[in-house]
Amino acid sequence: MKIAILGGTGRIGEGLACRWALRHEIYVGSRDVDKAKNAACGYSCQLTDRGIECRIDGASNKEAVEKADVAVLSVPYEAAFELIECLRPVLKNQIVISLIVPMKKNKWFEYTPPEEGCAALHIQHLIPEVKVVSAYHNLSYRKLCNLDLEIEGDVVICGDDVDAKHVVTELTREIRRVRPLDGGHLSESRMIESLTPFLINMATRNGLSDLGVKFV
Amino acid sequence: MKIAILGGTGRIGEGLACRWALRHEIYVGSRDVDKAKNAACGYSCQLTDRGIECRIDGASNKEAVEKADVAVLSVPYEAAFELIECLRPVLKNQIVISLIVPMKKNKWFEYTPPEEGCAALHIQHLIPEVKVVSAYHNLSYRKLCNLDLEIEGDVVICGDDVDAKHVVTELTREIRRVRPLDGGHLSESRMIESLTPFLINMATRNGLSDLGVKFV
Repeated sequence: MKIAILGGTGRIGEGLACRWALRHEIYVGSRDVDKAKNAACGYSCQLTDRGIECRIDGASNKEAVEKADVAVLSVPYEAAFELIECLRPVLKNQIVISLIVPMKKNKWFEYTPPEEGCAALHIQHLIPEVKVVSAYHNLSYRKLCNLDLEIEGDVVICGDDVDAKHVVTELTREIRRVRPLDGGHLSESRMIESLTPFLINMATRNGLSDLGVKFV
Repeated sequence: MKIAILGGTGRIGEGLACRWALRHEIYVGSRDVDKAKNAACGYSCQLTDRGIECRIDGASNKEAVEKADVAVLSVPYEAAFELIECLRPVLKNQIVISLIVPMKKNKWFEYTPPEEGCAALHIQHLIPEVKVVSAYHNLSYRKLCNLDLEIEGDVVICGDDVDAKHVVTELTREIRRVRPLDGGHLSESRMIESLTPFLINMATRNGLSDLGVKFV
């Protein structure tokens, strides 16, 4: 498959790009094409150093999505709307994976869902032509970027399109040891989105770090 | 300590009573005193059969709380208000542990929090004289009742009184392998309460059972 990772120069983007590049063509997307190309080059080097052949290219967000079957939205909630407007001309029926968590920080992080109930549903309403699937909110980027690490943790996947969810489930299995779980409809994404600020706060309170979640 | 378990004839009540009876006096509370005494007798037998000395008695909910330092509310949300009214004359400054999750079932379970934001906060507002601590929502009763089992899972503890939270943290450590985690203020209980219907739904969707949660 061809996978565009938008906000792909961030660390979650790096982790997903490197993990998926073993079997897929990756397009790292950014507003800044040079930054995207540099990042893509860096990720390629990491894999080449390990003797892994891969194809990772950098592009503008729009170009990345134009080429892709699957697009990953890995940007802050506030940045998502401008990004979506920029992508609109090239959106058709791609699978769009939302990692987005609307939250604010005062003393602690707080989940701040939109009127629609969660970010994933909000995005689906804005771009009904694509199939939004919600996943990967609670994967630690440090763990994801450490390619030697088998990640103990579950990824809950929410979405309204069964086939799109299946694709994301299979992509999830490619991340070693991570278990994909069906979280139900896109509206259920509220729960997994709201876990993110909760996990960050709990890590701080308990002297832990990089918390993910596992259902046991 | 003296611990009253209200709704103590239910299976979560059974599990907590048997696990804590190794070090504490347990009062199993019920609206029906005979049922409470029968349950207490059954739990005692289980422990005696294992060569464990214990003191577990049955009583009315009110009598149980009258004797106790810690009272566990292990009843359905709908039943909590009548229970609280009945307890009111004997409440002073006990620690009250709320396991309560307001939820309803249509096709799937849905979290239905009160106006206050969560059940624990609602209860604290109703009985400000006690110290409400929220915990144990996501322990599988099957695992808890199987006394041979070390339970792999975390218990998130929320509350506004530091000392009361400390007591519940120590009680949690007595359940083998379970890890207590500080979940913050009582208002944060919303997150752990809402996990319960989510876990039940996810278990059903994924062919799993008795799901708890572990932060990894």
